[in-house]
Amino acid sequence: MRRGPRLLCFLLSAALVLSACSKPTSPPSFESPSPASGTVTGLSADAAAIASERGLSPADVAAALKTYVPSGKLDEAVMFASGGHSGQVIAIGIPSMRILKNIGVFTPESWQGWGYSDETRAVLEEGSVEGQLLTWGDTHHPNISETNGEYDGEYLFINDKANARIAVVDLKDWETKQIVKNPLTLSNHGATFIDPNTNYIFEASQYAMPWTGEYAWMDEYQEKFRGSLTAWKFDRAKGRIDVEQSFAIELPPYWQDLCDAGKGPSDGWVFCNSINTEMATGKLTEDDPYFETSTAARDKDYLHIVNWRKAEEVFKAGNFVRINDFPVIPIETAVKEGILFFTPEPKSPHGVDVTPKGEHIVVGGKLDPHVSIYSIKKIEEAIASGNFEGTDPYGVPIIPFDVALEAQIELGIGPLHTVFDDRGYAYTSLFIDSAVAKWSIGSERPEDGWKLIEKVPVQYNVGHLAALEGDTVKPGGKYLVALNKWSLDRFSGDAEKGEFPGTGPLLPQNLQLIDISGDTMQVIYDMPMGIGEPHYAQIIKADRLQSWSVYPENGWDPMTHSVSPYAVAAGEERIERNGNEVHIYMTAIRSHFTPENIVVKKGDKVHWHITNIDRAKDAVHGFGLAAYNVALSLEPGEHADFTFVADKEGVFPFYCTEFCSALHLEMMGYLHVEP
Amino acid sequence: MRRGPRLLCFLLSAALVLSACSKPTSPPSFESPSPASGTVTGLSADAAAIASERGLSPADVAAALKTYVPSGKLDEAVMFASGGHSGQVIAIGIPSMRILKNIGVFTPESWQGWGYSDETRAVLEEGSVEGQLLTWGDTHHPNISETNGEYDGEYLFINDKANARIAVVDLKDWETKQIVKNPLTLSNHGATFIDPNTNYIFEASQYAMPWTGEYAWMDEYQEKFRGSLTAWKFDRAKGRIDVEQSFAIELPPYWQDLCDAGKGPSDGWVFCNSINTEMATGKLTEDDPYFETSTAARDKDYLHIVNWRKAEEVFKAGNFVRINDFPVIPIETAVKEGILFFTPEPKSPHGVDVTPKGEHIVVGGKLDPHVSIYSIKKIEEAIASGNFEGTDPYGVPIIPFDVALEAQIELGIGPLHTVFDDRGYAYTSLFIDSAVAKWSIGSERPEDGWKLIEKVPVQYNVGHLAALEGDTVKPGGKYLVALNKWSLDRFSGDAEKGEFPGTGPLLPQNLQLIDISGDTMQVIYDMPMGIGEPHYAQIIKADRLQSWSVYPENGWDPMTHSVSPYAVAAGEERIERNGNEVHIYMTAIRSHFTPENIVVKKGDKVHWHITNIDRAKDAVHGFGLAAYNVALSLEPGEHADFTFVADKEGVFPFYCTEFCSALHLEMMGYLHVEP
Repeated sequence: MRRGPRLLCFLLSAALVLSACSKPTSPPSFESPSPASGTVTGLSADAAAIASERGLSPADVAAALKTYVPSGKLDEAVMFASGGHSGQVIAIGIPSMRILKNIGVFTPESWQGWGYSDETRAVLEEGSVEGQLLTWGDTHHPNISETNGEYDGEYLFINDKANARIAVVDLKDWETKQIVKNPLTLSNHGATFIDPNTNYIFEASQYAMPWTGEYAWMDEYQEKFRGSLTAWKFDRAKGRIDVEQSFAIELPPYWQDLCDAGKGPSDGWVFCNSINTEMATGKLTEDDPYFETSTAARDKDYLHIVNWRKAEEVFKAGNFVRINDFPVIPIETAVKEGILFFTPEPKSPHGVDVTPKGEHIVVGGKLDPHVSIYSIKKIEEAIASGNFEGTDPYGVPIIPFDVALEAQIELGIGPLHTVFDDRGYAYTSLFIDSAVAKWSIGSERPEDGWKLIEKVPVQYNVGHLAALEGDTVKPGGKYLVALNKWSLDRFSGDAEKGEFPGTGPLLPQNLQLIDISGDTMQVIYDMPMGIGEPHYAQIIKADRLQSWSVYPENGWDPMTHSVSPYAVAAGEERIERNGNEVHIYMTAIRSHFTPENIVVKKGDKVHWHITNIDRAKDAVHGFGLAAYNVALSLEPGEHADFTFVADKEGVFPFYCTEFCSALHLEMMGYLHVEP
Repeated sequence: MRRGPRLLCFLLSAALVLSACSKPTSPPSFESPSPASGTVTGLSADAAAIASERGLSPADVAAALKTYVPSGKLDEAVMFASGGHSGQVIAIGIPSMRILKNIGVFTPESWQGWGYSDETRAVLEEGSVEGQLLTWGDTHHPNISETNGEYDGEYLFINDKANARIAVVDLKDWETKQIVKNPLTLSNHGATFIDPNTNYIFEASQYAMPWTGEYAWMDEYQEKFRGSLTAWKFDRAKGRIDVEQSFAIELPPYWQDLCDAGKGPSDGWVFCNSINTEMATGKLTEDDPYFETSTAARDKDYLHIVNWRKAEEVFKAGNFVRINDFPVIPIETAVKEGILFFTPEPKSPHGVDVTPKGEHIVVGGKLDPHVSIYSIKKIEEAIASGNFEGTDPYGVPIIPFDVALEAQIELGIGPLHTVFDDRGYAYTSLFIDSAVAKWSIGSERPEDGWKLIEKVPVQYNVGHLAALEGDTVKPGGKYLVALNKWSLDRFSGDAEKGEFPGTGPLLPQNLQLIDISGDTMQVIYDMPMGIGEPHYAQIIKADRLQSWSVYPENGWDPMTHSVSPYAVAAGEERIERNGNEVHIYMTAIRSHFTPENIVVKKGDKVHWHITNIDRAKDAVHGFGLAAYNVALSLEPGEHADFTFVADKEGVFPFYCTEFCSALHLEMMGYLHVEP
């Protein structure tokens, strides 16, 4: 019965490796039944019949053809969206609206081994609060690193609103490299926003509170609660935030909301809006109103105008105090040094967005039907001439509204966030109207002036928008995505009519792709978002990304971007014991681990080191170990370590969790833990 | 400056509630520029121009039109796919291939609050091993509950290969309700497979090992290592596995692989294939071969043929032993009672699939180019007449291969898994050929006989297949999905050519939708799968699902499907202290929590109870509490509890993590922890 199994396996493996390494030269056969050859474009003979049978309107047909990406062709752009309280970042192809990858950031992610190896666990542990490991985050506002105001595709930054943290994702391998906990506060919102050359990542706090760790009741709100704007210095060479070169500015206890950094003529400034300038303290007695009411009492809140270049000088001059061992420029210093100014903005603002040329700042107020457009020139003139209408209770000078304002445009109810295209138009989401408004930037389209051009309904309660490179100095136009917060009636029907009744009570969100290339906006795709709740997104042209598909060398530690000191080469696999510490040096290659049988003693501390020595693109191995809660993902060339105490006796299978070859099921071994 | 903020808020909230509760009556305006009205179907005037501009071939156009689901229209079917080592289940719309939802199962999922409330944490803790909480799983084979062999859309079962666990998902609310840990073994594979009326969920172990907790070295492999097949009794009324009514059958230390339960004439049987009938022990010395070679030495492995009805009788008669406090029918008893038989199957088999009429069992062997089709009639005749060719080393009688076999068809290299359509065709994935083979079931299409009809290439290394209700007694035809394991060249290009170079070294998988309604198979959609590694999937017609969109009553505990004893109604919010235990009874409604300000003392044990008293579909509230690692998702009507010791002093914002209304940012409060 035995005839050459080794030869067969070798041939199979070789066939697999060869097929894995060569690009298929013939297109898939699904084009064969078509009368035309593969290179001819145009409609199929049965196109009209298919449209009719499936009930597609002419507009549906156009939309289908604008969004379909055929097998073997690539999306034009990638949208990086926050995952909300999933804690992750979601990469989506444009125009197909297909999810390319969910990147593990603040939440452990076993498919990627994120948070299970020693290296990745250490990144999560960096983000702990007082020793408490946090296993989730609330990601809100991703920002792609920029050079001269354009996306450079190198890094992605993302904040955790729930715990005031910032993460750095390296787009060379799409992995999170660093999580920094803000030492001053426990929630942020105006993050991550960067200046045009990614010197700083700005993080404004959201809910005012005493400095982290300090106790106060609400009767001390105005004295003890504070906001802050932290400027995290980014060290591009290291690909890390340099905490030692970072600092914060103390802010009054308003709830700072979104921010944006200036560019062009406004470079050097960062703008943040705010809510609860009422300094409401919420419901304390039966008669008190809730925050939702009491934070909306005043007609105006304050746009915060911060000179970060001057703040940097003040910080470098040592003119700060240390709070929780972190350098903070006090409000009085910020005022005295000309760092901090306010101007009124319509009540309950959300988005603050600098136009592509950097001349104007657009604020959308949720409880005001206008967008308010400020001029950086007018702001700078007012500051230079001391044209203030007094100060807020904390002494911050206020530039009069009508002095700073360039224009206001009435768009509809609930203007929220504004992005830009390549033709001088701006697009603002209208949360309550469930629509997107297109309007002209008067300074860039003098023929139109500051004017509402058109609205398109979306389905619905649209939050943020993302346009192709729409917040850079050179927007790409063409595509706009509405990140709608509710999706009812879109992916679920009426059970009584026999329709698919949905996905249970937790519905997906609905992201809608809008074609903005023509004279009128066209909604061309509805995308259910059932893996998180994206708040904000950026869309980068795909060819700006230069990621690796295989790690540069075998034994690569993605956290240091160098070969690990524990890297294992073929032939160097071994088990070393030193007292009750055992080091296992293992390799993985299609389709076996070496060693396959391992014995340790109960109570041993086990340090396990694995290198994937496969070099073919896509030749990923997973590693799962029963009962000890170990899950790794080892990309080609990658090395990972994990450590545990062998406190359970018995026999524990481990195996490759990726279907890596025809003999993948056989890629396993046993850990024997002796009593 | 103050003018009626409460009135404004009320109006805004009312507008929002009204808009949320009413279905939009007018279609979105994206149809407006079309010359035809909304009800006319057909091509758009610019269709050919768009196809030409985007380089779409006629086949691409047909594929686009077959898969596009317009805004406001619903997918026809839902595919439930395992997430592999993500530990989750992924629901995908067919034919749009859009991800509708990622359902948290074995891995905590903060977007859904899965694993963060007391109720959901308890489910994860049920799945612990010796007190070790496991925070991931390796989901492989989802099965939808059946009635009379058809999907009934009520429950979904899924296994964790890495730790030998089974989970039950309730499709009323798409939430996991139960995780059961197998007490005998630490890995499974042949799970979850059910009989046609969902009496039992079958779970075959994968890697043979001593019973959990026992130690042995490989020299005792044949005596101490064992496989098992566990029959988990499903109590449909309770929606739970009834562990007390469940039992296992001891199996030889082969590596049991996939299983399928019989139906029609084969109902009462369950079939499992196996690898490593060599009982190879892997590389122990320099000269030993790896498992990948030594497990493929024999030309044949054993198809396990198990009479589960007889096993049930034997179990109910008390004819079992207890191992790890679980009832196990020993091999000798199984043999003596006519429960367990073998027949040879081609080496290294993977899929074992019963045809829709239940007459035949199809086995694909990865290292044999054929599918082998067995006849249940012939198997039963052989058993009845005692037509055996001896036994395996454990005394299990072996039915001769040629006696049990109905037919063999040569399909190509690496046949892996077979599903069925409504026209008498079967579809088998070819892992190494990277193709799908269509062949005729001779007994159902006598005009064709047992014959290969056609192959279609896929891109590539296809693992399992899923066809519309393709493993039930009434397959739906029309759609087939190839779950390809590798995707290189599909979603990533060549950086040197300026193409999008991919998603980092961890590539998505590629799921391809194939139109099987015509004479030839057509690949019509490439779907990147970047949130997990699906192994197996089932596709159910959407109208069979009858899920809830709002919980039946306020205060609903999804884990008990009844109103929680801790449910909180409007007006009943309160804080109760008993010594150092504090109970917080809170409601959530757009857009506030009650209470908003909470004070506890450092060291208090806090029991926090929250009811979402919103009743509108999609009115979900999240709950995030800084620093204490709390993340909840409260669907309309849902109640949840969480418990923690307030060991950190200071002020901790909590807020609604779902963008639930225009005043969502204001839906917050403060937990004050007094020193």
